Amino acid sequence: MPTGSPALFTDLYELTMAASYHARGLDEPATFDLFFRKLPEQRRFLVSCGLEQCLDYLENLSFDERALSYLGTLDLFDDSFLDRLRELRFTGEVWAIPEGEAVFETEPVIRVTAPLIEAQLVETYLLNCLSHQTMVASKAARVALACGTHDFVDFSARRVQGSDAALLGSRASHVSGASATSLVLAGQVFGIPVSGTMAHSYVMRFRREADAYRAFARDVPERAVLVIDTYDTVEGARRVVEVAAELATEGVRVQGVRLDSGDLGQLAHQVRSVLDEGGLSGVRIVASGDLDEHRIASLVESGAPIDSFGVGTRMGASTDAPSLNAVYKLVEDADGPKLKLSPDKATLPGRKQVHRAHGEAGVEGDLIALHDEEVVGGEPLLDRVLVDGARTWPSPSLGAVRRRCRETLGALPERLRALGPEEFEPFPVGISEGLQDLLARIGQDPHH
Amino acid sequence: MPTGSPALFTDLYELTMAASYHARGLDEPATFDLFFRKLPEQRRFLVSCGLEQCLDYLENLSFDERALSYLGTLDLFDDSFLDRLRELRFTGEVWAIPEGEAVFETEPVIRVTAPLIEAQLVETYLLNCLSHQTMVASKAARVALACGTHDFVDFSARRVQGSDAALLGSRASHVSGASATSLVLAGQVFGIPVSGTMAHSYVMRFRREADAYRAFARDVPERAVLVIDTYDTVEGARRVVEVAAELATEGVRVQGVRLDSGDLGQLAHQVRSVLDEGGLSGVRIVASGDLDEHRIASLVESGAPIDSFGVGTRMGASTDAPSLNAVYKLVEDADGPKLKLSPDKATLPGRKQVHRAHGEAGVEGDLIALHDEEVVGGEPLLDRVLVDGARTWPSPSLGAVRRRCRETLGALPERLRALGPEEFEPFPVGISEGLQDLLARIGQDPHH
Repeated sequence: MPTGSPALFTDLYELTMAASYHARGLDEPATFDLFFRKLPEQRRFLVSCGLEQCLDYLENLSFDERALSYLGTLDLFDDSFLDRLRELRFTGEVWAIPEGEAVFETEPVIRVTAPLIEAQLVETYLLNCLSHQTMVASKAARVALACGTHDFVDFSARRVQGSDAALLGSRASHVSGASATSLVLAGQVFGIPVSGTMAHSYVMRFRREADAYRAFARDVPERAVLVIDTYDTVEGARRVVEVAAELATEGVRVQGVRLDSGDLGQLAHQVRSVLDEGGLSGVRIVASGDLDEHRIASLVESGAPIDSFGVGTRMGASTDAPSLNAVYKLVEDADGPKLKLSPDKATLPGRKQVHRAHGEAGVEGDLIALHDEEVVGGEPLLDRVLVDGARTWPSPSLGAVRRRCRETLGALPERLRALGPEEFEPFPVGISEGLQDLLARIGQDPHH
Repeated sequence: MPTGSPALFTDLYELTMAASYHARGLDEPATFDLFFRKLPEQRRFLVSCGLEQCLDYLENLSFDERALSYLGTLDLFDDSFLDRLRELRFTGEVWAIPEGEAVFETEPVIRVTAPLIEAQLVETYLLNCLSHQTMVASKAARVALACGTHDFVDFSARRVQGSDAALLGSRASHVSGASATSLVLAGQVFGIPVSGTMAHSYVMRFRREADAYRAFARDVPERAVLVIDTYDTVEGARRVVEVAAELATEGVRVQGVRLDSGDLGQLAHQVRSVLDEGGLSGVRIVASGDLDEHRIASLVESGAPIDSFGVGTRMGASTDAPSLNAVYKLVEDADGPKLKLSPDKATLPGRKQVHRAHGEAGVEGDLIALHDEEVVGGEPLLDRVLVDGARTWPSPSLGAVRRRCRETLGALPERLRALGPEEFEPFPVGISEGLQDLLARIGQDPHH
């Protein structure tokens, strides 16, 4: 595939609007909020994720000559604007809720203040990047809650929406608790542990299933997790017992078996018995195949002896809520705070901060306030992460983001940690007095 | 983001299996089928898309030193295998159903024959790439059917799953009929027409809505499509009429208006009246906002005077069917045809061809046959597209793929072109006598 210019990852209207702002000298600083308008019905909280790549993008934004030359072919932009783009860098300030933190609807997760042209152009990428990873991290957090103390691994690369959906999805599910990923690239790029078992095709390559097990365990002893449902799962377990004895004499230990079809709960019990009776009580059972948090919760609750879950498409593509309603809205410009009144699409004006109240039992509620407003109690969630277009300090490690996520999940009220679908009382997100006053004032005269 | 090595876009087990094959000299040619096991309930056909990027990947596959060095850190692979990877190129043969063609469940869409190690390693990328674009093209084809003679444009970049989901999704929706995309990068990379209107933030930047319209139409006259729902849609239309008269004296013509919220059908009628009464019968109405094929069909059927639809997340993320059950299965190796018997996951053995029967009213049914089997009537769908790892001829242009898609949609039986959700008789996909004989023969002794 021909590669393009990263700066052209933007909607055309960002550029036509920017051209108009440029022509009119309307390039004073403006502030935009990126927030989730509404949580999907199937989610009780979101886990913020993707900020790291957003900051990478902002720090590196620039239009190369190929981009400018392509834009020239559109006959929409004059040389003065193309010259502005040639020298354009992101020079603004960004406040954001750190990755791994629980976030709720209407709260600004990223707040961008920059010359209007810069702030406008970055909309498309920021929305895409933050909403994708937040979507996956939020789904994976539910999988983590369902797994409890059980381990789960990301198997989603093959059926998610494109290659960076897979790569960044691995990162997002790792943030929310996946211990490893099957995607080797995610190991190389992010240092996430990589994990894998064996495919049915390997078993099929050999004349006898037992031959395949013997061969794989000898050749890759560290990863000798044998898939046993190619022909018949319980028979497969018996074959594992046969070969394990033989392999033991060579000092090779079978690590685990994988079930990938059929009634996983029932089969896990049968397989566990076969393995235990064969003296293989140390061999782990891995289950996979169209798993999601509900199926895992039901397996865990039923006491199925499964040690680890391989979770693929339903987590990586967040199939029950495959998009988030992320928006990026102008809230303040040279003329002061701004708001939009479209039906069901109104916005909160002004530069804002989110304050989270902690009680003895965990977090109790959030308050959206004006940036400078004094709020008693409550931890401010938005940190200043970029100043003059550069990071204020090194980003937290992926390990630190994972810890933050574990802590934030642990502090959520029990009703939000439940998987649903029954009704629940949403997490309270209030609006401060200062913000209410502002709303009342400019809501009467939005064109002020 | 640190960039990784493209060859590491693979699941770890592909590499551990390959290492074992290498150690045992099991690298004779094998054949794998990529197919969709089952159509999602919400789909009556799929549109094959993504082959072009799969072929690019296969032609360029190679492990760079960074990849090998990373793999070395895993302590799983010996030097002999890493040396094999260092020199590895894809040298096999590929047959595939061309892009833009309707495909159905269980039919091989890509058939790979290559030395076993090569054929195995490419699984993850081929599945990811073909299933993503096929998913979007299949959804966009339904949007195209709903639109009929109306125009639609891809607006999905900001909320799909990552940046190449956006780029390749634009390509896939263009294949199925989108006239343009908002994503500038897709214009640069694929030559897809780019299109855009104006955002609410632009309107909000000005003191008065009319000032914003005046400014934008003057600065970007070619793209003067004005968003009119920032404060009140019908009022917005009246303002457009006001400024249009003034602009006309300067030779500037307003191209269109965009509705993005509220009851689009009702508002379109009201806005059309306002525009017509204001002498702006040539100004087009563009509608956007959570549109999908069902909402568009209902707007079109109700006679809403909408000229063009901007379709975003629901199309680009295929939200009602956000993944396809694509699989990649060993069907033949050095020992002959192979099959897998797992419950609900059985496969069809042997190298195969798909024959499509055409009747007077369009296509009537498909027959999956053995590759060399003689089939009377019916057009063979799988073409040989790669020989010795290189394309047999230049790929069709995107325009040619679009034409093929239009033709294939036009030839589908009416019941498959309907959007549902009511019951329908699925497209018949039969299994030839030769394939049935083979199944019967080796199904009795799968370990043959």
